[in-house]
Amino acid sequence: MTDLSQGAAWMGGRIIPISEASIGVTDWGLTHSDIAYDVVPVWAGAFFRLEDYLDRFLASVAAQRMNILMDRSEVQGALQAMVGASGLRDAYVAMVAARGPNPVPGSRDPRDCQNHFYAWCVPYVHIVKPDQADRGTTVWIAKSVRRIPRDSVDPKVKNYHWGDFTSGLYEAKDQEFETTLLLDHEGNVTEGPGFNVFAVFGNRVVTSDHGVLHGITRRTVLEMAAAQGFAVETRPLPLEELWAADEVFLSSSGGGVIPVAQVDERRFSNGAPGPAARTLRQTYFEWLEEPRLRSPIRYD
Amino acid sequence: MTDLSQGAAWMGGRIIPISEASIGVTDWGLTHSDIAYDVVPVWAGAFFRLEDYLDRFLASVAAQRMNILMDRSEVQGALQAMVGASGLRDAYVAMVAARGPNPVPGSRDPRDCQNHFYAWCVPYVHIVKPDQADRGTTVWIAKSVRRIPRDSVDPKVKNYHWGDFTSGLYEAKDQEFETTLLLDHEGNVTEGPGFNVFAVFGNRVVTSDHGVLHGITRRTVLEMAAAQGFAVETRPLPLEELWAADEVFLSSSGGGVIPVAQVDERRFSNGAPGPAARTLRQTYFEWLEEPRLRSPIRYD
Repeated sequence: MTDLSQGAAWMGGRIIPISEASIGVTDWGLTHSDIAYDVVPVWAGAFFRLEDYLDRFLASVAAQRMNILMDRSEVQGALQAMVGASGLRDAYVAMVAARGPNPVPGSRDPRDCQNHFYAWCVPYVHIVKPDQADRGTTVWIAKSVRRIPRDSVDPKVKNYHWGDFTSGLYEAKDQEFETTLLLDHEGNVTEGPGFNVFAVFGNRVVTSDHGVLHGITRRTVLEMAAAQGFAVETRPLPLEELWAADEVFLSSSGGGVIPVAQVDERRFSNGAPGPAARTLRQTYFEWLEEPRLRSPIRYD
Repeated sequence: MTDLSQGAAWMGGRIIPISEASIGVTDWGLTHSDIAYDVVPVWAGAFFRLEDYLDRFLASVAAQRMNILMDRSEVQGALQAMVGASGLRDAYVAMVAARGPNPVPGSRDPRDCQNHFYAWCVPYVHIVKPDQADRGTTVWIAKSVRRIPRDSVDPKVKNYHWGDFTSGLYEAKDQEFETTLLLDHEGNVTEGPGFNVFAVFGNRVVTSDHGVLHGITRRTVLEMAAAQGFAVETRPLPLEELWAADEVFLSSSGGGVIPVAQVDERRFSNGAPGPAARTLRQTYFEWLEEPRLRSPIRYD
């Protein structure tokens, strides 16, 4: 028996250990970061909101004009087979469409490439460690970089263009902050590496809808907040407005709702998770268990 | 004997066929496009301007705060051994530093990653086919995208963030143009996929110095132009000014100086290579043979 407990990959119809999964060094997915991908969480043995993640992934693939030669049910089947074989009951599951190698010698034409699909899964990833999320994390506003603008690379198509995030992360770590948040060129709050950002003002919850991924967890938060009687606003969020928030929190499929205790030198809700973020965090973990949002996995 | 005539790679000290060279699907070099790279041409059995390419590559690695655990002479030795083993006398040679896998489970900290170096080579690539370059190529100004700005991802650090170029290339191909040229958000000419851009006005040659790679071939062109009595100007080049040029041409380590016959609907120099571009193209191929700029390769 192959050990898949550290993770597995689906490549060309085969399920292999994650440590053996690779792509060629001349694949345009690597050399041009020409990738559309998505990540669906698996929690307690089921995919969460799988149809929503598949919708977004297939929309991204179409937007990138790739043909992965697999339809929705085949993608779903690959994910099911891979996670089922891995035995992982809580997992981070990536589905990836890559532009692929260009078999025409010297061709610089993306239409010549052989697009391909692959997937991989590893044990569930918390983008902020749960104990730190429970205490409220720390966020550094990147000073040296601005988020790649949406008329350069569309952030609604989930992609691997993370150079701006990586620069911001180094800044954050230098300042001993946990993670980073990027502004756009107009000074609005956008997103960070793997998460959307929310600000709470009394009974209003605000998150950006410009120059950011329209996260599925972001959507879940908007639904939860509405169900709890918050007014929800999706619109540009100027940094000046963020400073006046009662609470700030992050959303990610890697950990749900993550309270923020501090942004730069500003402490929010007395340097601890605020009541709205605490409640939404708890509710998210409850929703992860709701049958209407789950696609149970058949384990071998 | 392994056949390396289609290309070879150097990975972890081993030289392998290009078809077998790959990186892991969880390497941050892929998942965060967290790569610094460079490409040095090999022409007639020698590296061209190798020291200049190594200077830039090592500066990029340092700028990305990577430690590839190899010094300059070891990188040079790897390139020599790989190309020597391949037998390729005209080659496109890539040297790559990747952020690498993150061995700490769940870590989102780039400082935890295991950076690594690899290299690969394939037969020499012309970014525009030589017969088309001889006739003058066609260039489409991308309308739907702008170049990723330099305060998001630094274009002077050669990188794989090509999403903007790929969008522009699809536009160009839809319009039956060969390649694409991107503007910055202020409306200045920047660069295209794999090349810098020059405009000729009488005895002046102008190329951008903002938001572009400072190409080694660009530098060679500036040196050749100066030697031929042109005044050279490196400064932002507004699109409006480009339209008034006598000639336009591209520079790339994949083909040298490439005359442009047409940009959008505007034909330059009567839809053919202009005299300055023709002369510089010829001179570039002469300089490729100059001993002072060459590092000969020892073939096995």
